[in-house]
This record gives sequence, structure tokens and C-alpha cells, in this order.
Amino acid sequence: MKIDGMAYRMIRRESGTGRVVTFDQTMLPHRLVPIELTSMEDAARAILTMQVRGAPLIGATAAYGLALALQRDGSDANLAWSIEHLARQRPTAINLAWALEEVRKAVAGVPTGDRAAAAFDAAARLCDDDVETCRRIGEHGLGIIREIAAKKGPGERVEILTHCNAGWLACVDWGTATAPIYMAHDAGIPLHVWVDETRPRNQGAALTAFELGGHGVPHTVIADNAGGHLMQHARVDMVIVGTDRVTANGDVANKIGTYLKALAAADNGVPFYVALPHSTIDWTIADGFHIPIEERSADEVLKVTGRLADGTVASVEVAAPGSGAANPAFDVTPARLVTGLITERGIAKASREGLLSLYPERRMGGRGAI
Amino acid sequence: MKIDGMAYRMIRRESGTGRVVTFDQTMLPHRLVPIELTSMEDAARAILTMQVRGAPLIGATAAYGLALALQRDGSDANLAWSIEHLARQRPTAINLAWALEEVRKAVAGVPTGDRAAAAFDAAARLCDDDVETCRRIGEHGLGIIREIAAKKGPGERVEILTHCNAGWLACVDWGTATAPIYMAHDAGIPLHVWVDETRPRNQGAALTAFELGGHGVPHTVIADNAGGHLMQHARVDMVIVGTDRVTANGDVANKIGTYLKALAAADNGVPFYVALPHSTIDWTIADGFHIPIEERSADEVLKVTGRLADGTVASVEVAAPGSGAANPAFDVTPARLVTGLITERGIAKASREGLLSLYPERRMGGRGAI
Repeated sequence: MKIDGMAYRMIRRESGTGRVVTFDQTMLPHRLVPIELTSMEDAARAILTMQVRGAPLIGATAAYGLALALQRDGSDANLAWSIEHLARQRPTAINLAWALEEVRKAVAGVPTGDRAAAAFDAAARLCDDDVETCRRIGEHGLGIIREIAAKKGPGERVEILTHCNAGWLACVDWGTATAPIYMAHDAGIPLHVWVDETRPRNQGAALTAFELGGHGVPHTVIADNAGGHLMQHARVDMVIVGTDRVTANGDVANKIGTYLKALAAADNGVPFYVALPHSTIDWTIADGFHIPIEERSADEVLKVTGRLADGTVASVEVAAPGSGAANPAFDVTPARLVTGLITERGIAKASREGLLSLYPERRMGGRGAI
Repeated sequence: MKIDGMAYRMIRRESGTGRVVTFDQTMLPHRLVPIELTSMEDAARAILTMQVRGAPLIGATAAYGLALALQRDGSDANLAWSIEHLARQRPTAINLAWALEEVRKAVAGVPTGDRAAAAFDAAARLCDDDVETCRRIGEHGLGIIREIAAKKGPGERVEILTHCNAGWLACVDWGTATAPIYMAHDAGIPLHVWVDETRPRNQGAALTAFELGGHGVPHTVIADNAGGHLMQHARVDMVIVGTDRVTANGDVANKIGTYLKALAAADNGVPFYVALPHSTIDWTIADGFHIPIEERSADEVLKVTGRLADGTVASVEVAAPGSGAANPAFDVTPARLVTGLITERGIAKASREGLLSLYPERRMGGRGAI
């Protein structure tokens, strides 16, 4: 996708220099600051501090982080330690563990001296696959938007609500939840996006709005509190969100507050879709209650970062002095509230049978690659 | 209630000087700034800019504003014009119109020269009544908290979630939703309050946390997004909120986002209570869909005010430059999602029959004073 007309991928290894580069998302939308990851520690820190975030991008960053680790030391011991270290930076998104496992498999039979090269290749392949996966998610989701648009009167827009950022900033390109939006917009379907600001880290106001604005997609930022009211007044035609982990029975872990929007969608007959690549499915867990939910710093709730009038970026403390905060970063939306899961293979019901209809090879109970 | 050990009422007329004083709530929790209302325009501006906010306090402020207007000019024309002007400052809270009507009735048969004195008396009476009303709401709500506490194990606290600020800062004293909390805390019942930060104006983080902290009530600020997750994990025993208008069939207009919490409470079997004085009931509207919902400035969503590291109060812009925002200030929670309405007369089902059981004089269809 593009920023100011320039096409970017969120993470890549420069072909000449071999530098692994991404952008510091904690500085968006105020500054577009490229950062170089020179070591596994850089990658781990970028994941932990959310300089990179979004389930697919976390996976891609971890893959490059593991390659950087193997560049320094290709031993089995360092491989195992690095996987363990990278995996524990963030607990909820399953893509992190999945990507590390992909790289591990790619280097398993390789002599230690050649492992870094094999790992960089695997990471690059994983990124290419993510782009293609998101593109296909976009095509499948586009069909849903087309159907809604077909029922609209002249001059009416398709009204889409999204939560957090499951855009190309969260992936390598396209995004998951946003891919259908970009494709529909590019196809000339009139649409408008309600962007949940997504407290406490404001990924909606800061990142999704930045993305959509950059691509020229009409959008309006709203407080997370507003979505239910808009649905009650028939101002939302569909909700589409990303996810950090989908269980084998279709429960959806996503950014805190997603569950509340799913409840409101169900209460108002608004279709609620979740867009995801296969790498976000955790076939080992049936019930979303067992997904580990990350608890993050109270400061993320108590302080807000933004631009002062003079353009300086600063943090202000909003809450009453002395009051503490709790900060669960994700919640789980039960499958019963999800209209459909949009993957690279098509659209399925959020259920075991639905997922198996798209991924029949999982019926064998194996862990085979998809 | 007390701030730093000093007892305050949120609005009062000083007996010696006749000055009408309140506090500028837009400066809380950063500064406790008293303000004097010297004219009707002062009162109107304070209501519009939310220097005073909260349905009961808006009513009390409007009553004093009307008295100030009559002090300048006690004519029928000025009475009518001032009522109309004050009433239109904020559309959703019905207490505003109710309080103005109370004062109008009090001065109706009074010679123009004596109207100001009669109006000040009416405003003071209205404030005293509000304190007593909130105290009674507290006693009725305390019964509910006692019942929940009785089922708790040793060392377990009653976990209460609230949205926005329906505390004493929103009233004259006690608060509506907070009155039962203060009474239960004072009675030695172990409890803890989850305080929704309440975007976009952060009344929870800024005001409710300030109040509860000042009174020593254990509490934790959370993003508005977090409440559903906490309820899913059985970490909320009850929700209690205030309201800006309750229709004759029990629909509840309250701060934007209340509806989402009511949905989550219903989905998880958590009782959802609404505390209100009789003055918040709009007997002229049956269906909440017809309550006018105030649309406020986009800046309230796009910018956040707080303390910089050096203690200065400043606003930062969070959203992507160029992105707009929508800002509906209230939503309507359908009666079906409300476990009970707590009024000064007791607890009723959120329904026409429930309300009439507490206010049987309304069965006559009259507009008689309560």
C-alpha cells in the first residue's frame, strides 16, 4: 500500500545491504520513522514495545528476528533459546509461535553455518505468502461488500465499522480486515468506514485512520463507546475486524472491546465478520476461554500520547492522580456472535465444521502444513 | 461529600454574599477551580461547555441561572426567554427542562419584583431535595450491594462496574449511581469499583476516579473496551450507572457506551442497575428511540486533555491528521437490558408498570408534582 504515493511493505530485508527494516508504529500517525532491526534483541524489543504490532506482522518480525539470531550463532541451542525468547514477548497472537515454527522447520536439516541464509529465505517467503494471503482475503471479503452495495439505493454508501488496526500496518501489505475495504474502494464501490479509536493504545485513531486517509478511503473516527448507538440507528452495514487467534471451534481473540461490538452487531442484526490468515488459527485450542490474554501496563490507560499544538509529541496523564488502571489487551468473542470467518480460502461459519470445510486436511487431526 | 477532608456541595448560593458558586469540572482532576455564576449567561455557558455536567447538577445550575436572569429582569418576557435559552444548552438530560419548570411554577404568581427571591428559594429547595433524593437512592441501592456481599466468601469484595460519572460531582451531593457505593463502603462492606474511563471526555478516569479516591473507595480505571472481558471472567458482580433521561417505558438514555455494557451484562448474567431521581423520568416519551441525542464536537474525540510531566495541563491530538470524528454523546439502553431502576422511592422493573408502581400518581395521566 501507499503513503504519500510511495509503495511500502511493512517489513522487508533490503536486497543490497541485507538490512531488515520496518517502521516504528508507536510514532504513528505523528512521524513515519523507519527502524532497522540488527539483532534478535531488536526484533524482540520491537514486538514487546509494539513498535511492530498486528498478528501477521508480529509473526513476520519474529521470523526475521530468528534469522538475525542464527546469523550470530546457528547452533541448536541458540535456535531453541531464540524461539523461546521471541515467542514470549507477546502471548495472545498465535502467529508469533506459528512463524517461529515455520522458520524452525526451514532450518531443521540445514548445517549451522547455512541456517541464517535459510532462515532469511523462510522469513521472506513467509512475508510474500502473507501478502498473497491478505490479497485473497480481500477478494473474498469484496464479495460480501458487493452484495451489501447491491442492496443500497443510489448515492448510499456501504457503512463498515472496524476496531483496532487490522490493516496493512498490521501485516506486510493489504491488511486482513482492510483488504476487502481497499479492494471495494478501488473497485469504485461507495463506502465509508467508522474507525473505533481503540483505547487504550488508539490504534484505530492513530493507525487505521492514517492508513485509510493515505489511501483516500472516506472514514470517521469514533469513540469505542459509539458503535452500539450507530448500529441501533442502522448506520452500520457490516463490522469487519482482524484477530490474534481463532480457536478450532471459531472463538475469536482480538483487541479488547471487539466482544462488545460483536454483541451490539448481534443485537441489531448487523453482520460481524472476522478476517484472518490460516496462520491465526490455533487448532490446539477448542474453547476461547483458554486463550492467554495479555495484561499490559496501566500507563497505557492512564496516559495518552499525541501532538501538542506546536507539533511536538508528548504524553499527558488523564486520570485522577493516584488512581490505578487495569489493561487487558484482548478479549474473546464467542463463535456464536460471528457471522463469518474470511480466510484466504473463502468464507466459513465460525465453527469447527466451518473451519474444517476450508481446511479439510485438518480433519486428519494432524499438524500438517497448510 | 469530601475533598481532602472538606465537605462540599457541588453548587450553592453563599448565604452572606448571595454568590452562586460551583466548580469548573473541565479542570478536574488536575485543578479544583471554583467558579462564580454571576448571570444567566454564565450558567448557560457552564452547562454548554460542561464546566458543570451530570443530569441533576445541570438542573440545579439551570435553576440558579433562571434566578440570576430574574434578578436582572423579572418580567414574563425575560422569564420565558431565559427558560427557552437555558433549556436548549443541552438536549438530552430531561432534568434541565424539569428544573426550569419547577422554578417557573414557583415564580408564576409572584410580582415581578419578588421573582428573583422566589426563584433563588426554589433553586435552593431543588438542591436540598436532590441531596435527600440521592441519599434515599443510596439506601435502596445499598440493599442490593448487601445482598451480593452476603453471597461472597471471606475476603471477597463486591465488584461494581460504573460508566461515566454519576457521582456527587454530577449532582449536588452523594451522586446517584455512587450513593449506594459510598454507603456500602461506609458500612464496611468490602467493595471495589471498575471505573470505565468513558471516552471521549474521560469523565470516569477524571471525575469518578477522583471522587472515589477522595473518599477512599478502592477502584481501578479501565478502558471502556475492557468491561465485557471482565464480565466474561466473572470479575463484575453488578453494574450501576446514572442516566440523563428515562422514558415512561423504562428505556435509559445515558452516556455513550452504556448500551454496550448493558449488552455485556445481559450476556453474562450480571445485574445492570440504573440509579435516578424522579426528575430524570420523562413521562411524555414512551420509546427511547425518540430521545434527542446530543452530537458534540469532533475535537472531543480527536484531542485529549491531561497533565504533562511538569504538571501543566495541555491537549494532545491523537488521531491521524486530516481524519474527522463523530461524537454522539449518549446512547439508549432498551428497558429489556435493565435489571432494575433505583429511585428515591425504591427499586422497580424498567417498564411502564414498574415505574407506575413507584409513582402511582402518574396513573392518572396528569403532570402532577411528585
